[in-house]
Amino acid sequence: MTPVAGAEGPEADRAPADTGLLSPVRAGTPVEAATGDTAWLQAMLDAEAALARAQARLGTVPGWAADAITRAARAERLDARRIALDARENANPVVALVRDLTRVVAEDDPKAAEYVHRGSTSQDVFDTGAMLVAHRALTLVRADLAATTDALARLAARHRDTPVAGRTLALHAVPTTFGLKAAGWLGLVRDAEERLARVHERGLPVALGGAAGTLAGYVTYARLDGPDPGADAGELTDRLVTAYAEETGLARPVLPWHALRTPLADLAAALAFTAGALGKFAVDVQGMARTEVGEVREPGGAGRGRSSAMPHKRNPVLSTLVRSAALQVPALATVLTQGLVTEDERSAGAWHAEWLPLRECLRLVGGAAHTAAELARDIEVSPERMGGNLGLTGGLVVSERIAAVLAPALGKAAAKQLMDDAAGTAVRTGRTLAEVLADAPELSGRLTSAELADLCDPAHYTGAAPQLVDRALRR
Amino acid sequence: MTPVAGAEGPEADRAPADTGLLSPVRAGTPVEAATGDTAWLQAMLDAEAALARAQARLGTVPGWAADAITRAARAERLDARRIALDARENANPVVALVRDLTRVVAEDDPKAAEYVHRGSTSQDVFDTGAMLVAHRALTLVRADLAATTDALARLAARHRDTPVAGRTLALHAVPTTFGLKAAGWLGLVRDAEERLARVHERGLPVALGGAAGTLAGYVTYARLDGPDPGADAGELTDRLVTAYAEETGLARPVLPWHALRTPLADLAAALAFTAGALGKFAVDVQGMARTEVGEVREPGGAGRGRSSAMPHKRNPVLSTLVRSAALQVPALATVLTQGLVTEDERSAGAWHAEWLPLRECLRLVGGAAHTAAELARDIEVSPERMGGNLGLTGGLVVSERIAAVLAPALGKAAAKQLMDDAAGTAVRTGRTLAEVLADAPELSGRLTSAELADLCDPAHYTGAAPQLVDRALRR
Amino acid sequence: MTPVAGAEGPEADRAPADTGLLSPVRAGTPVEAATGDTAWLQAMLDAEAALARAQARLGTVPGWAADAITRAARAERLDARRIALDARENANPVVALVRDLTRVVAEDDPKAAEYVHRGSTSQDVFDTGAMLVAHRALTLVRADLAATTDALARLAARHRDTPVAGRTLALHAVPTTFGLKAAGWLGLVRDAEERLARVHERGLPVALGGAAGTLAGYVTYARLDGPDPGADAGELTDRLVTAYAEETGLARPVLPWHALRTPLADLAAALAFTAGALGKFAVDVQGMARTEVGEVREPGGAGRGRSSAMPHKRNPVLSTLVRSAALQVPALATVLTQGLVTEDERSAGAWHAEWLPLRECLRLVGGAAHTAAELARDIEVSPERMGGNLGLTGGLVVSERIAAVLAPALGKAAAKQLMDDAAGTAVRTGRTLAEVLADAPELSGRLTSAELADLCDPAHYTGAAPQLVDRALRR
Amino acid sequence: MTPVAGAEGPEADRAPADTGLLSPVRAGTPVEAATGDTAWLQAMLDAEAALARAQARLGTVPGWAADAITRAARAERLDARRIALDARENANPVVALVRDLTRVVAEDDPKAAEYVHRGSTSQDVFDTGAMLVAHRALTLVRADLAATTDALARLAARHRDTPVAGRTLALHAVPTTFGLKAAGWLGLVRDAEERLARVHERGLPVALGGAAGTLAGYVTYARLDGPDPGADAGELTDRLVTAYAEETGLARPVLPWHALRTPLADLAAALAFTAGALGKFAVDVQGMARTEVGEVREPGGAGRGRSSAMPHKRNPVLSTLVRSAALQVPALATVLTQGLVTEDERSAGAWHAEWLPLRECLRLVGGAAHTAAELARDIEVSPERMGGNLGLTGGLVVSERIAAVLAPALGKAAAKQLMDDAAGTAVRTGRTLAEVLADAPELSGRLTSAELADLCDPAHYTGAAPQLVDRALRR
Repeated sequence: MTPVAGAEGPEADRAPADTGLLSPVRAGTPVEAATGDTAWLQAMLDAEAALARAQARLGTVPGWAADAITRAARAERLDARRIALDARENANPVVALVRDLTRVVAEDDPKAAEYVHRGSTSQDVFDTGAMLVAHRALTLVRADLAATTDALARLAARHRDTPVAGRTLALHAVPTTFGLKAAGWLGLVRDAEERLARVHERGLPVALGGAAGTLAGYVTYARLDGPDPGADAGELTDRLVTAYAEETGLARPVLPWHALRTPLADLAAALAFTAGALGKFAVDVQGMARTEVGEVREPGGAGRGRSSAMPHKRNPVLSTLVRSAALQVPALATVLTQGLVTEDERSAGAWHAEWLPLRECLRLVGGAAHTAAELARDIEVSPERMGGNLGLTGGLVVSERIAAVLAPALGKAAAKQLMDDAAGTAVRTGRTLAEVLADAPELSGRLTSAELADLCDPAHYTGAAPQLVDRALRR
Repeated sequence: MTPVAGAEGPEADRAPADTGLLSPVRAGTPVEAATGDTAWLQAMLDAEAALARAQARLGTVPGWAADAITRAARAERLDARRIALDARENANPVVALVRDLTRVVAEDDPKAAEYVHRGSTSQDVFDTGAMLVAHRALTLVRADLAATTDALARLAARHRDTPVAGRTLALHAVPTTFGLKAAGWLGLVRDAEERLARVHERGLPVALGGAAGTLAGYVTYARLDGPDPGADAGELTDRLVTAYAEETGLARPVLPWHALRTPLADLAAALAFTAGALGKFAVDVQGMARTEVGEVREPGGAGRGRSSAMPHKRNPVLSTLVRSAALQVPALATVLTQGLVTEDERSAGAWHAEWLPLRECLRLVGGAAHTAAELARDIEVSPERMGGNLGLTGGLVVSERIAAVLAPALGKAAAKQLMDDAAGTAVRTGRTLAEVLADAPELSGRLTSAELADLCDPAHYTGAAPQLVDRALRR
Repeated sequence: MTPVAGAEGPEADRAPADTGLLSPVRAGTPVEAATGDTAWLQAMLDAEAALARAQARLGTVPGWAADAITRAARAERLDARRIALDARENANPVVALVRDLTRVVAEDDPKAAEYVHRGSTSQDVFDTGAMLVAHRALTLVRADLAATTDALARLAARHRDTPVAGRTLALHAVPTTFGLKAAGWLGLVRDAEERLARVHERGLPVALGGAAGTLAGYVTYARLDGPDPGADAGELTDRLVTAYAEETGLARPVLPWHALRTPLADLAAALAFTAGALGKFAVDVQGMARTEVGEVREPGGAGRGRSSAMPHKRNPVLSTLVRSAALQVPALATVLTQGLVTEDERSAGAWHAEWLPLRECLRLVGGAAHTAAELARDIEVSPERMGGNLGLTGGLVVSERIAAVLAPALGKAAAKQLMDDAAGTAVRTGRTLAEVLADAPELSGRLTSAELADLCDPAHYTGAAPQLVDRALRR
Repeated sequence: MTPVAGAEGPEADRAPADTGLLSPVRAGTPVEAATGDTAWLQAMLDAEAALARAQARLGTVPGWAADAITRAARAERLDARRIALDARENANPVVALVRDLTRVVAEDDPKAAEYVHRGSTSQDVFDTGAMLVAHRALTLVRADLAATTDALARLAARHRDTPVAGRTLALHAVPTTFGLKAAGWLGLVRDAEERLARVHERGLPVALGGAAGTLAGYVTYARLDGPDPGADAGELTDRLVTAYAEETGLARPVLPWHALRTPLADLAAALAFTAGALGKFAVDVQGMARTEVGEVREPGGAGRGRSSAMPHKRNPVLSTLVRSAALQVPALATVLTQGLVTEDERSAGAWHAEWLPLRECLRLVGGAAHTAAELARDIEVSPERMGGNLGLTGGLVVSERIAAVLAPALGKAAAKQLMDDAAGTAVRTGRTLAEVLADAPELSGRLTSAELADLCDPAHYTGAAPQLVDRALRR
């Protein structure tokens, strides 16, 4: 075996590729580029530029300087790998980013360089950048969820009345309709969408606190450089936060949140919910796609689902990808939830532990949503197999009903016993439950054969399933 | 060592005590009784009774039967341990509960016993019971959070201007005020309250689905027993769900949620958030209570905080209890979040895995909230130690400011160098930064000693901290 | 709805019952009693008594005092609920336990009471007690794992050659044998047993550190009370730890581990592994028990598996219970793993957060092992259904083989194409693959119909499955 | 704000860079390159080549073909991004990898291409590749742990007798020595090393199962192509597994482990342990580095620890990086532990969910170990500050001792009271405890002032701390 040489030294300076090799659920999907290192670097630069413009709106940074900073703040002008490596010196990449941004601004306009990161602190820039990345990623996720809900709504409507076995604890229970199953998936995905929308629209604020959350540096510079050396700190910072929020398109926080991690915890909860909602859809598809069940099939096409060893198999690949994300996200999200317990005005580690899990949650959920949209759109449904499977238990699935109907006439216990016997006979002999009951002396003269057939038809015992579908679609 | 005898056989029939020995954060607090086995059993009985009354409102169960069931549905009439043991036969306690409830109803009124659990399924009763438990527990939790926020608001107002070191990455950064720290804790606890309120008020629905979520059993019995044998399934079930929600005081779901676990995931998220919010308060208290820091002290009294080995120590016991909960809840909550990925119309395991984690989350959060309320109310604050600690770094904490102020006159680099040197001298010699700078030839003639003293005073460099406190208190 | 009254005041003093209502996987199983509050209290008392005896062996506590302490240290003489409630004063139950133990010793022998907890600290007693509880619980768990492995070994041997579909990504892949499936479960459970044995036999040490891990209190008292006032601290403590380990039957640690939580992390890992191993068995049983698959059935008897709504169903209850544990334990275990990151000589919270998760992990794993033993012993296997299912895909499951065999003669591509076509025809027409291939002109004259039948027989394409079973059974 | 354009289309084909921007704990460290996409791709190619060579040793693949495959199996000849994108078609990258490897082998030697991946399955290649990556990464991790333990052992030896406050629940308890603290860190890191070594040396097996774990494909080809068409399946596969293990340097499994995930669970446990062990070291360093404590300082140099806003601060950057890893790994490891519960012969999702968490665990632990080695080597220790802090409580830290020593003479209660009073007076008046006690009338004539000074000296009350250091160093 070739040993791996130590990577420090010149070799370590090259940024390795992130091809997505270990994460097919997101490889090449829109969210991947939106959350990559380049996108993250750009978002932090956008934060620096927006800060300068916000300060310019207050008159505490010259407008030309803010313009110069905005023009220079382009990821392609910086060396992300260099910044990443230098981040080991400070435990965060912003110190090196400010150094390099200052340099490129100075290349364009030396005087403007003075105004880069004025009064600011690393965490303001990092967190605002993270919120921008999250905001952009959620736009993509929500678009894919919208496509998923559209497709699921169509599926629910189309199969409003298609009977299928309702299964509990792995076994057939009573009939339901495939439409109601799809309506359930739809309901969950809509719940996810609501939770993401709440965070997306109001829960992603700018970070603006300065060195320890008092905004003192911003105030000092504003008084030194701005029109009013005696400006009130409260009013100044109020206006600055508002301007910063407007320049970034993010929300306005009540307090600086360096150590008050509500936005991260909320994001984590909404993303974990979304992963779970999509995961429910995926495991149900897999259960119905099993060889013996065969009620749904994933879309094929383009070689999708082919295995390397078994040429004829069409694997449920999309649901597998979605499920793989659903199995990862809750654990990653927990790191963010735990990050609420963070000491002092900035944690020595809890903050730094958020970054990777946040990105992976966004990516996995984004990839899963993209994949689920395709699955929901193109899934193949077999009402025939659903009907066939409903017949497998010789009437077990309607025995609840018949026992109830016969109870008034026969007595509860006798009705139950009759059903036990008849279902057993049906399974053993291969006859239908209606045929067996037609021969039961207890029932002779009580029910016509048409009534009996109706009573035994699983398709006629779907309760309020169709109406529940209607209700879900009206939501 | 005494070996442990096998516990099956008669011994196993006795219910062991849950003294709270391993969970002092909740032992004896209100939430403990509200979430115990007796409370849970009663809640499931409340669900059975409410269901019968709801059916009576539709005319499908006689009113006298619903009354009899309601009267009989008392936990003290059932043997919870027997039910718990028998739950191993079915993987849930409701089958045995229905058996025993039917028996006690029959003791009172044999005819009413026919109407127990009519058309229902175990999960409807268990889940509705769980929502009742959660609802009652959240009432208690929210009361303790209200007490906590009241106390924290007072603390923030009182110390709006009390200077204290802002600490980042374990070290003094710049000054802040203790009021702003308290306002931050307040903000987080309010965020928690909002999230719990949302769930409490709208997110805890009745469960009503019947055997597989179609309500077919309810419809069948309603048609057999009720006034209208041809009643529309959609309308019937709609009315039944509404009546059930009204009888229990819980919310009305769009769809049966046996396998759509939004309520559990939402509860989990809100409870994990609350634990984290309280945990942040706790770790900050601990950081400030450290022997070397000494800025706050937990309330003593009643032997609180005494250690067995060190008689003079007063341990930060309340924050320890709160933190112990904060370290457990997120992991437990993750089990609930993962429960979204649940197969079919009822999972063979994922549903059953929710019960303990849900109770523990409620209990731990309830205990932590109760404990935090006491901590917030009685914490002892030492502005003197805060001031003393601010002086420890010989001006480091204001060097950001002075460098900014001197930069226009001396140039940025020279100002920085001057500050580096002066702060070092101050620490080394034990003189104040103002004294050192007064001797600096670069500054001679530039600043009066009063100006210098003002500039070097940490208490005068708290930025917008006081105004941020005001803003937080107005929220 | 009846509101829940606040439980503080006299009501709170009564210990509520822990009936196991929410945890049927462990209700009434041996591990439940072994890990209950009474057992835990007794274990801490055992630790106090063993400490006194160990000190007596060094001559630093009189033998009669150690005897008196040992006699008095009985859980039934103490009020566990009182201790639990008082634990809120100190964040741990040992302060109150020492108080009450001292009292009961004094009732018997006032002079002996002086020697209770001599030189000790709460954590020494709590942690040693916890290790005793774990040790006793693991004895029970391992007995149930042994019963499980015995039963699985029999199952594997009996079905060494029973063909069944190998399933990957939810679909039939190629045949395997049921014996190999059982051998896999066996292998995992044995892996679990090995990991538990390692912890059980060497990984559960006494805790002995004194107030901050230096054993200074023990040394001081040993010098004051013992035969040699100038005794060497290293030698004294070495002998004390050895004696303590011998008195408890626990292992001897290298260093005091108040803040070095290796034993907890190791326990957590082994318990999470065991839960997962049993969980794999459970989900496979559920997959094979599904109505459409029907290859295995859980044992019935004693009403097991009956649902409240569907009288004919026999639910896979045992596997559901096992799986419910497997879904909880890893998250709980993570709390223990995270506890390694614990500050100072004793954490203000991380230690306290271990207690409940440790107990629940022990209980859930113990209950799951007990349940799995029954499942493995009594599971019903249907080779007929396995054979029937193997035929469902019309030869898909052996197409890998036939394509390989025909490739040398027909060429790889042509062989593959032939198989694609033939499998499709078989499924479509309901004929067997052998029948279809018998008509294929490409094969005419190449294979006898006996050769063809052999080649197409799934039972003849199980590779090394039987030999792998042999290998696993020899392990 | 610049909206993010959809990334599908040609743009998506470019692999983004993984600069390590969000993970400074590993950016540029040796483990980063060893676990990157290129390394992973190469490891899977190494698996393919080793399989061909193993088959050649059995005579079932020609030696020249195995040589050709080995020569061609170079990551630089394949397009990793293309493979990653195509992995969405199959939910794993191996199908595309086999396609592309076959192509490059064919470019060199068309006949050899027939023998690529002969009889194999995606999971055999992926899992063997993953084990190779893990093996190589663990080599690096263990080297850094060895450097860490060396440095910690030196630290423990050097400060064997350096007194420092032992702290429990955030407060001074009794004295200990800094050497014992370092010995504790050392003990944990050694525990981690042992656990990693066990996995590294015996726990990373080759994966060889074929399509569903029976090795049937390997057997079929071996009989077709090898010297003995009637070869026994058991013997053949036994030899093949042995040869494969030898060619890769990995361990030999008992059974194919596609769905028996012991190796992943063991890796997870050992890596989570290691992260926790290093995390304990890190949080203790941070606690001692706090401004008010000042007992240790992280190494400076090369700009390390500088903040962007506060030029004079030297942040504890290394411990922050280590802690950031320790806060992430346990959650990620839980995904792997949960993966034990995996259905059938290959899971549709659980397998796929392992990949990212496995890599991140390796990377984070590798980065943390590399960082901890530097921290342990270069940490600056201040015995002066330790001594100064020990004096802060006016004797509290030795009051346990003095009360014990005086008890025989004064009685237990009187001794305790005396100590309470004296410690209070010392703190209040700023005098030393010895001075206060010298004036106590109760003690007059009982102790010389030298005896008193000795008794009150924290440095003389470190119990067995020095000897425990010796014991730890001998381990």
